[in-house]
Amino acid sequence: MESIARQSAKLCPFVHSVTTSVHSVKSLGQANLPAMAKQCPFMGRAMRTANYATSASPATANSTRSSLREDESAFVDHATAESAFDYDGLFEHELQKKRVDKSYRFFNNINRLAKEFPLAHRQLEDDKVTVWCSNDYLALSKNQEVVDVMKKTLDKYGAGAGGTRNIAGHNKHALKLEAEIAALHKKEGALVFSSCFVANDAVISLLGQKIKDLVIFSDELNHASMITGIKHASTTKHIFKHNDLSHLEELLAMYPRSQPKLIAFESVYSMSGSVADIEKICDLADKYGALTFLDEVHAVGLYGPHGAGVAEHCNFEAHRKSGIASPQERTVMDRVDMITGTLGKSFGTVGGYVAGSLRLIDWLRSYAPGFIFTTCLPPSVMAGAAEAIRYQRSHLDLRQAQQRHTSYVKDGLADLGIPVIPNPSHIVPVLIGNPDLARQASDILMDKHRIYVQAINFPTVARGTERLRITPTPGHTNDLSDILLDAVDDVFNTLQLPRVKDWQNQGGLLGIGQPDFVPEPNLWTSDQLSYKNDDLHPNVKEPIIDQLEVSSGIKY
Amino acid sequence: MESIARQSAKLCPFVHSVTTSVHSVKSLGQANLPAMAKQCPFMGRAMRTANYATSASPATANSTRSSLREDESAFVDHATAESAFDYDGLFEHELQKKRVDKSYRFFNNINRLAKEFPLAHRQLEDDKVTVWCSNDYLALSKNQEVVDVMKKTLDKYGAGAGGTRNIAGHNKHALKLEAEIAALHKKEGALVFSSCFVANDAVISLLGQKIKDLVIFSDELNHASMITGIKHASTTKHIFKHNDLSHLEELLAMYPRSQPKLIAFESVYSMSGSVADIEKICDLADKYGALTFLDEVHAVGLYGPHGAGVAEHCNFEAHRKSGIASPQERTVMDRVDMITGTLGKSFGTVGGYVAGSLRLIDWLRSYAPGFIFTTCLPPSVMAGAAEAIRYQRSHLDLRQAQQRHTSYVKDGLADLGIPVIPNPSHIVPVLIGNPDLARQASDILMDKHRIYVQAINFPTVARGTERLRITPTPGHTNDLSDILLDAVDDVFNTLQLPRVKDWQNQGGLLGIGQPDFVPEPNLWTSDQLSYKNDDLHPNVKEPIIDQLEVSSGIKY
Repeated sequence: MESIARQSAKLCPFVHSVTTSVHSVKSLGQANLPAMAKQCPFMGRAMRTANYATSASPATANSTRSSLREDESAFVDHATAESAFDYDGLFEHELQKKRVDKSYRFFNNINRLAKEFPLAHRQLEDDKVTVWCSNDYLALSKNQEVVDVMKKTLDKYGAGAGGTRNIAGHNKHALKLEAEIAALHKKEGALVFSSCFVANDAVISLLGQKIKDLVIFSDELNHASMITGIKHASTTKHIFKHNDLSHLEELLAMYPRSQPKLIAFESVYSMSGSVADIEKICDLADKYGALTFLDEVHAVGLYGPHGAGVAEHCNFEAHRKSGIASPQERTVMDRVDMITGTLGKSFGTVGGYVAGSLRLIDWLRSYAPGFIFTTCLPPSVMAGAAEAIRYQRSHLDLRQAQQRHTSYVKDGLADLGIPVIPNPSHIVPVLIGNPDLARQASDILMDKHRIYVQAINFPTVARGTERLRITPTPGHTNDLSDILLDAVDDVFNTLQLPRVKDWQNQGGLLGIGQPDFVPEPNLWTSDQLSYKNDDLHPNVKEPIIDQLEVSSGIKY
Repeated sequence: MESIARQSAKLCPFVHSVTTSVHSVKSLGQANLPAMAKQCPFMGRAMRTANYATSASPATANSTRSSLREDESAFVDHATAESAFDYDGLFEHELQKKRVDKSYRFFNNINRLAKEFPLAHRQLEDDKVTVWCSNDYLALSKNQEVVDVMKKTLDKYGAGAGGTRNIAGHNKHALKLEAEIAALHKKEGALVFSSCFVANDAVISLLGQKIKDLVIFSDELNHASMITGIKHASTTKHIFKHNDLSHLEELLAMYPRSQPKLIAFESVYSMSGSVADIEKICDLADKYGALTFLDEVHAVGLYGPHGAGVAEHCNFEAHRKSGIASPQERTVMDRVDMITGTLGKSFGTVGGYVAGSLRLIDWLRSYAPGFIFTTCLPPSVMAGAAEAIRYQRSHLDLRQAQQRHTSYVKDGLADLGIPVIPNPSHIVPVLIGNPDLARQASDILMDKHRIYVQAINFPTVARGTERLRITPTPGHTNDLSDILLDAVDDVFNTLQLPRVKDWQNQGGLLGIGQPDFVPEPNLWTSDQLSYKNDDLHPNVKEPIIDQLEVSSGIKY
């Protein structure tokens, strides 16, 4: 009894917070627990709801609605005594499915410490682990200039925007941030959303709903947010094989050139690290009269001389020389109609955006419910994101350090025969191939080695391709990498996980252990990695002055 | 020429930022502008894109795709010379429609000053206005305790969460915030989303997609986010007349009790201030076996002894006496299955949430793409929101001051014969009834009286019911209200806007000037308004200790 009481006291928020005389575990054990429980915000409710209290098997229980106690029968019309649908049973059934197929997710309590990056503490402050799977790719969330701007903005402008963009929530922070984003991508305008999930969903769904007979062509590995947008677009769609431009062209060629089309794709696919051939997709878009929608969520900050993404990287030299101005030549980035990106990964804060022509931006601003009917991000968040973009634009060294650390880890894993899905980007996907083993691997890394790498299971990746996704940053030095490499090696030994040679024996998977597989060269060339920050145009250090104020219905 | 050059220099971000010798407006006038323009990130692109540069009528122009210059013809396959769809023309056409029907929106640059609440500055820091339309209902965005917690969290944990909740983005701030929300609504659990737009969309759409044959019953005035969720639910829906429970019951009665059903409604409807009868809707839900989904976005912070919303207000005394514990009696708040709310209005920050049973929360956590695939809110935002909820829970005086200031404004407007759509809540909707006049009224208030009240036009409200929506806060003293009342009176005189008697002559509208209209009593009774903070249970001052950690797949 006492051990149960002790455990309850530890777990129960009510016992902690009520001001009773029951303070010790012992006295709790002697207390009138049923009487206390009725006072508890959670137990009290549960006790009044017979379903929770008496049903051993929730999946077969009646719903809360039909199991009220007699003394609450006023709520029930006995004339309609037919059972209500068993909502709780459905929820429980769906959860049970996840438990059975091992896709049920456990969240880790990870508190990343700004001053000890890449360390985080778990529940207890002195229980520290090294985080190796965050998407804070450039470590800008702990950047002092970003944090200082945010604190200053909090002091002056408060915690929240207080309204939608249309009603009291539009301000100079939004203007500045959108100007920074537009300048980064060398587009006429930009629009900020609550997240890039929302941006992708809002933009794609609106295009589908407003452009009659639009046909959407979508890469099969596109992110859930784009898939959601495409679903909400309620129009014809075709899924093309991942990065397979012959397949894409076959599908495009099915329609006349005058038929409206949208090609939706990513630059860096986050879970595999594979990279799209943006230029060739633009060629196809021109040929078949399609709009191009490019998600650079996992590329902004990391590619291009100024961190505008892979589209900028395609014309690295031209952009490097021209700074914030457009190069003389027409670039790949020019040719993409819409670029979406996030403020929550490389740019260290939260939020998402789309950049494009002023007309497109004004149209989205005027029609997208996901933009119109929601509270603007806080001034401090927008100010911090704008500062992060400005800061990283002139800090080529951050991108380069991230790349060097990635190569160090990839080379080290290769030497150990640990299977990494080959790719030309900064993502290090270690193939496990089994959901339960992936989770065990993650647990051993955490518990034994104090290293946090989340297991990536279905639905984030396809079943059978479960993996550990490692993301080095400028803060992940070679010393830390050596510790990681030893730890991963140990986990592979402990769990007897398949190494490259094992995959080879099975015929290979995703480019691992496939003799005919030709790896792509890294996006960053050694020449590009050798530039100094000073090799960038001096104008990249300046903040971009508000430029959207007149153009798109925004006034003072 | 010089005036054009001067204007350009003022507006152009490039002229400000390039490091050329062209510094004075005079020298700019003499510069080789076309050569400079090619260097400009925006003009340069426009000049290379013939469409923008040469087409006088964008609506009839070919799209960018088909109007590339000859020297860029490599991008165009002349074998497929059929014109591409005119995307730009469509965007322009849709924008033009908004300009013609006066629903095109102009954003105001409003920078709310924390230390001078409710003042904000416009573009220039000394150009100050009084904000009378923010949804920062309790002025908590400028609350020093909230701001201090956010700054401290920024210093310690950095600017952003760095990942999704599943991958490196889950932390003690999320746990604490969700525990505070669950305790506020006396539910077993809560889940935080990027916004309440996302929460409403994600929850309703998932219910529709996962519960086979679900029928949704939706109030006709439901917010765009719920309408979006219902659309995405892809299931049968019925719209019931606003707050018309006979109509709702007629619709419910069409289906057997065992058929799964969802009643989706709000407590306070934001643009009219009307209030749902939550208890009667719960009775209908019980009778017909429906789930209840209640949006308390415009009620949290403002109703109930602890600011949990109108559902809490229904059992004011029971909740007041029991503090954070559940009352002995079953309450209306208990009976609602799902309550959604925002962190971006009364709670001063940004984000949204749903509160409900643990099983429901775990199910949403496990299946809703809008939750799973997006970056967690920044630690500082979550910490600030949790602090705001804790703070307001014990500050009954904030809610009471807000109500008193609302009554003062409503009474003053009534004395002037200014038409206010009658309602029992804190919203003050001044009827204008014409989109152009609503905007002019807003402009005169701003330009002449230095008062900011945004005009609310279609699609936020129905055409013909355009209004000015005034939102008093605890910071809007009677002195400020007197200035507002004089200003609104002046605007009504200047624009000869219809007063109550004019609406009466036309037969009335929305309860204004309708002789048979019976106004509802205010939600807050004079007894409720007379309580002191000390009349609340002492436990409401304590922060709520994490309670989700064990229960829903969350671990350390």
